[in-house]
Amino acid sequence: MEQENNQPDGRLFANITQVGVVVHDVDESVSTYEKIFGKDSFVVVEGEGTATLGDGRDVTIKGKLAFCQLGPVQLELIQILEGESCHVDFLKENGEGIHHIATEVANLDEEIEKFRAKGVEVLQRGFGLRPWAYMDTKPIILELIESS
Amino acid sequence: MEQENNQPDGRLFANITQVGVVVHDVDESVSTYEKIFGKDSFVVVEGEGTATLGDGRDVTIKGKLAFCQLGPVQLELIQILEGESCHVDFLKENGEGIHHIATEVANLDEEIEKFRAKGVEVLQRGFGLRPWAYMDTKPIILELIESS
Repeated sequence: MEQENNQPDGRLFANITQVGVVVHDVDESVSTYEKIFGKDSFVVVEGEGTATLGDGRDVTIKGKLAFCQLGPVQLELIQILEGESCHVDFLKENGEGIHHIATEVANLDEEIEKFRAKGVEVLQRGFGLRPWAYMDTKPIILELIESS
Repeated sequence: MEQENNQPDGRLFANITQVGVVVHDVDESVSTYEKIFGKDSFVVVEGEGTATLGDGRDVTIKGKLAFCQLGPVQLELIQILEGESCHVDFLKENGEGIHHIATEVANLDEEIEKFRAKGVEVLQRGFGLRPWAYMDTKPIILELIESS
C-alpha cells in the first residue's frame, strides 16, 4: 500500500475541518479565547457519549465541549469530566494543547483499513453526530470524520 | 477592539497553511510519517537562523526541520539542535506534539498590533523565507506568516 516517491497522500489534509484542543477547564478557556475571537463566539455543550478505546473496550465518557467556527475550521475545546478517554491520557502526558486535527472522509471504515495497512491503528472511535475515529498517528493525532 | 456577539474573527483560520510539530528526532519522525504519507515525501533541512524571543532578546537557533506538503497544508517537523527557542520550552513542558497552526497574513506588524490590542503578545518572531511570528494564544500557538 506504500505510495511512490514524492507523492504524499495529501487528500487527508486537503480539508482540515477541525482543530481539537484538550483543556483543563472549558469555561476558563472559552473566556480566554473569546477575548481573541469575540464575545459569545463559542457554543458550550455538556453531555455523555460512548466510544470504543483502542483496546476494544466500550466506554461512556462525560465531557464538556466548546465549539467556535473560525472560517472553514471548527475550533473544539475538550474537557473530560468522567470516564476513560484518550483525551485524559493526553492531558496527563502532555498537558493542555492541540490534541487532534480533523478531516472528513467519505467512508470511515475504508479509510481506517487504509491506515491499518500502513501499520496505524485506531486510538479511539465513536459516533457523535457522525462516525469518527482518532488514528494513532502520534505525535499528531488525525481524526477522521465521516461526511454526512 | 472587541468584536460583537457571535461574529468570531474567522479570517485567521480561513487559510491554515501549516501544522508545526515539535519532535525529539526529525529523522526518526520522518521515518514514521513516511510510512503514512509516502516514501521520500519529506524534505529535510538543517540550518541556523535568528529569532527574537518574547522578552526581546535576539537569539541564534540551530535546527533540523522536515517539510511535507499535504494538499494545501504543509506539515513541519521541528527539532531544535542548539539555542533558546519556544520549541525547546514546548518539548520540555508538553513533550512531542502539535506546536502551532500557521496562517498567512498580508501585513505581519498590523496583525500583531491587533492581537496586542486583545492582550495577546508575541511569543517569538523571526524572518526565514518570510517574516513570521508565533502569537501567545496558548494552549494553541498561532503562527502568522506574512504573505510573499
